[in-house]
Amino acid sequence: MPGSGKGEFARLLSEKGIKVITMSDVLREKYEKEAKSGERLMDFAKRMRQLYGKGVVAKLCVEKIEKGSNIVAFDGIRNWEEIEEFKKVGEVIIVAIHSPPKLRYERLLKRARKDDILTMEGLIKRDWEELEMGIGNVIALADYVLTNDSTIEEFKSKAEELIKRIL
Amino acid sequence: MPGSGKGEFARLLSEKGIKVITMSDVLREKYEKEAKSGERLMDFAKRMRQLYGKGVVAKLCVEKIEKGSNIVAFDGIRNWEEIEEFKKVGEVIIVAIHSPPKLRYERLLKRARKDDILTMEGLIKRDWEELEMGIGNVIALADYVLTNDSTIEEFKSKAEELIKRIL
Ligand SMILES: Nc1ncnc2c1ncn2[C@@H]1O[C@H](COP(=O)(O)O)[C@@H](O)[C@H]1O
Repeated sequence: MPGSGKGEFARLLSEKGIKVITMSDVLREKYEKEAKSGERLMDFAKRMRQLYGKGVVAKLCVEKIEKGSNIVAFDGIRNWEEIEEFKKVGEVIIVAIHSPPKLRYERLLKRARKDDILTMEGLIKRDWEELEMGIGNVIALADYVLTNDSTIEEFKSKAEELIKRIL
Repeated sequence: MPGSGKGEFARLLSEKGIKVITMSDVLREKYEKEAKSGERLMDFAKRMRQLYGKGVVAKLCVEKIEKGSNIVAFDGIRNWEEIEEFKKVGEVIIVAIHSPPKLRYERLLKRARKDDILTMEGLIKRDWEELEMGIGNVIALADYVLTNDSTIEEFKSKAEELIKRIL
């Protein structure tokens, strides 16, 4: 979910030498070429899913895997159909990063990237857009849920422990 | 999710003197009076939701709250509409108990209660029935996620810590 800290987890994986494919980057690449004028990234993603199936972003990401790769991390899974796509090419381990909504909203309001929606109502609406894509099912069926609700140091140390356990 | 250990968490709350209302017990009470012959509990629940709205089981549970109660725990939330019902009568703290699917299936196969479905396919099917009700959204938006993927002792100690933190 937005503001949970999954980007931080991806950064740690990357530091350990693991190739990370950021799904929104792959999506954005296509978006920049094919989006309708004024179309939001998320609406473009929804349209792609209607056209090519719910696993479409994962399919695009699988094409980005370099030949001979052993471990690849995908940052930004949104639904179970994407998991099914990844399962076609290898063993899948799902790691969900969880933070309480209140904390996520606080972080997002602080971070305020260009494409972040800045009211509480906007953030809650975006949460539900993510949930409607099916992300809750992926979290519920995750192999690991890492909680990010105290300090960044504690999160990092838990994350490092988990990465060791998985690899 | 089935086999996650939420029953264990409820038992711990109960030991601490907190009143626990088991949502499936409340549902079953209605089921025994009103189910059609041969109707499964889960199908009865689906029918009730269609008839009276998705928050119906929570509504029935709210009626069970004793006058003057301060803290009450509800074991078995399945969708966000139920959360909305509880919010009408007080502050709500959502605790999700997470276990990796593989571990849940192993536990369920071992436990094998009368109404448990005993094949792997059956367990996966039941997971998806739960997810279709909307439980993934509740987990994604939980205030706390407690992981139950090692020993029962470790789970208990983490649970006790969390209970202290909440109360
Ligand atoms: N797998 C995906 N499927 C659909 N949309 C995605 C996906 N990954 C990222 N996005 C979109 O990109 C935005 C940023 O994603 P993220 O970088 O994962 O926070 C999200 O709000 C979505 O609109």
